[in-house]
Amino acid sequence: MTELRHNLITRNWVIIASDRAKRPHEFAQTEKTKIVLPSYREDCPFCLGNEHLTGPESYRLTENNTWKVRAVPNKYPALSPEGERVRNIDGIFRSLSGVGFHEVIIEHPRHDLTIALMEVADVANILRVYRQRYSEIRKDSRVQTIIIFKNHGSSAGTSLEHPHSQLAATPIVPDQLRVRIQEAMRHFDDMDECLFCRTLTSELAAGERIIFESKHFVAFIPYAALTPFHTWIYPRQHLSSFEDITDEEIADLASNLKTVLAKFYYGLNDPDYNYNIRSIPTDEQRTDYFHWYISITPRVSLVAGFELGSGMYINTGVPEESAAFLRSVEIPEI
Amino acid sequence: MTELRHNLITRNWVIIASDRAKRPHEFAQTEKTKIVLPSYREDCPFCLGNEHLTGPESYRLTENNTWKVRAVPNKYPALSPEGERVRNIDGIFRSLSGVGFHEVIIEHPRHDLTIALMEVADVANILRVYRQRYSEIRKDSRVQTIIIFKNHGSSAGTSLEHPHSQLAATPIVPDQLRVRIQEAMRHFDDMDECLFCRTLTSELAAGERIIFESKHFVAFIPYAALTPFHTWIYPRQHLSSFEDITDEEIADLASNLKTVLAKFYYGLNDPDYNYNIRSIPTDEQRTDYFHWYISITPRVSLVAGFELGSGMYINTGVPEESAAFLRSVEIPEI
Repeated sequence: MTELRHNLITRNWVIIASDRAKRPHEFAQTEKTKIVLPSYREDCPFCLGNEHLTGPESYRLTENNTWKVRAVPNKYPALSPEGERVRNIDGIFRSLSGVGFHEVIIEHPRHDLTIALMEVADVANILRVYRQRYSEIRKDSRVQTIIIFKNHGSSAGTSLEHPHSQLAATPIVPDQLRVRIQEAMRHFDDMDECLFCRTLTSELAAGERIIFESKHFVAFIPYAALTPFHTWIYPRQHLSSFEDITDEEIADLASNLKTVLAKFYYGLNDPDYNYNIRSIPTDEQRTDYFHWYISITPRVSLVAGFELGSGMYINTGVPEESAAFLRSVEIPEI
Repeated sequence: MTELRHNLITRNWVIIASDRAKRPHEFAQTEKTKIVLPSYREDCPFCLGNEHLTGPESYRLTENNTWKVRAVPNKYPALSPEGERVRNIDGIFRSLSGVGFHEVIIEHPRHDLTIALMEVADVANILRVYRQRYSEIRKDSRVQTIIIFKNHGSSAGTSLEHPHSQLAATPIVPDQLRVRIQEAMRHFDDMDECLFCRTLTSELAAGERIIFESKHFVAFIPYAALTPFHTWIYPRQHLSSFEDITDEEIADLASNLKTVLAKFYYGLNDPDYNYNIRSIPTDEQRTDYFHWYISITPRVSLVAGFELGSGMYINTGVPEESAAFLRSVEIPEI
């Protein structure tokens, strides 16, 4: 018999389909042919030397006279910094002008790298630019929420090879975030504790779903993971916004994130994935009840009609088995 | 500039990306090679004559001594009718035994059909079996919600060619449904009207997003459609549960659903799609504030990191253009 598990943070019910579960290694990408990318492409707007091919840079992190990470406008922005925040309410037809920010963070000068294969110091540079952009963009009073995310691979929504992430700053608080905050508030009022801190404590005590621990961060597959290998990285320190991460924590997170993504890379044959950094709305910043974290979703399964029609999930990976598998994956020295 | 639209029923904010929008015909599937399926396959458990290859049938609809539609257990059930409904609460780790029902509804004896190409009377038979199964399964006190859904094509989550739908009866109310009910209740209390009835009235008055109207049903692309060609079919009659559909309404819905799916089939070259029927939890059945409907999601775009990280959507189809396109698609006589 299957088991339903309730994810108290996302509020989704998940059916853990043990009977029809695949073994962890069966989720490895088999069809993926290893394409050896060049380190530079003349036509790639994100490659070193091609800076003139992007829109005006909003930030660059430089070391030894060369840039390491750049932030540039998205060429096809979903939100634009020009214009006023104008709300229009016409009965049930309610709209808002698409003001905000939509930036691309070019993660590395080289075309052929991915976080799993980068130096930890390079990953730390990316995180530093995330923080700088978050902090800068938050000052704009039209912005209410900042989402930092990455699409890796075509099934995860990108066709660009050059390693990059994105930042979207929206003029509203997404309803999903609002509902989760309300639930976290209620837990705080009921139990006098942060639901996320409690989740971390409980997962550490259980132990069986932990992937990797570092000084300041813990990577684990949640008890009610929505999809196979769905992974969370939580800061041990209670903070509501990614913006408040310290330099020391950034160095530690870089190592943790790289390790997890390298375990995916070697254990599951470079699966496509998305990750995102979930922070509190920009107006709130520091609260007792909300805790920022990173969510990683490898694209090793499909969402079908049942999920669309119910908001529930059928997870054909057993979280405890997936975590044990990832713990056992060794990362070769490169 | 883009426009954000708020979907008051799902509560999602959608970015209508007019600037980067595709024209409607650009969503047509180009890679799909028309595979001519046989009308019968010896190894297909759903084909006429192969009834022994499925588990014990729970229902069959027969005409002229041959079955037209059958309901059978899913071979890999996510939920099972055996066993007790047992809840286990261990701090934040909360589970429930996977009791419930997971059936397959075999839509037609022939292997090579799809709803878009069936006779209207055949589609009505499918809907009658949906209603019969809903009504029968609702009697089980362990069941709280019944979701009827269809996965058409591999990107929509099925590898089976034979036309079929599914029914899942869950022992909980999914949180997504709970939240939507709470919002609909609040609208009813605030405005003294059903939010869905109001949506239908407003969409009919606007007119520009209507795809097809029949006597009892209206198919339209909602103002804040989550994805390109995301379509809703609403009953004009206020009813909270699909179970209460009448025979006359079934005949009309069959014609409406077939028309919409045929417009997808001919206009977008047989795209993969999911549909689901959204009803109130089984304990409630008749309310003033909730209204059942069908939601159809053609798989013509990908959900990426932004959607996963925010619960918002970027829709690269403009709803008014998509609806105008579908209105213009002519369905050949066959």
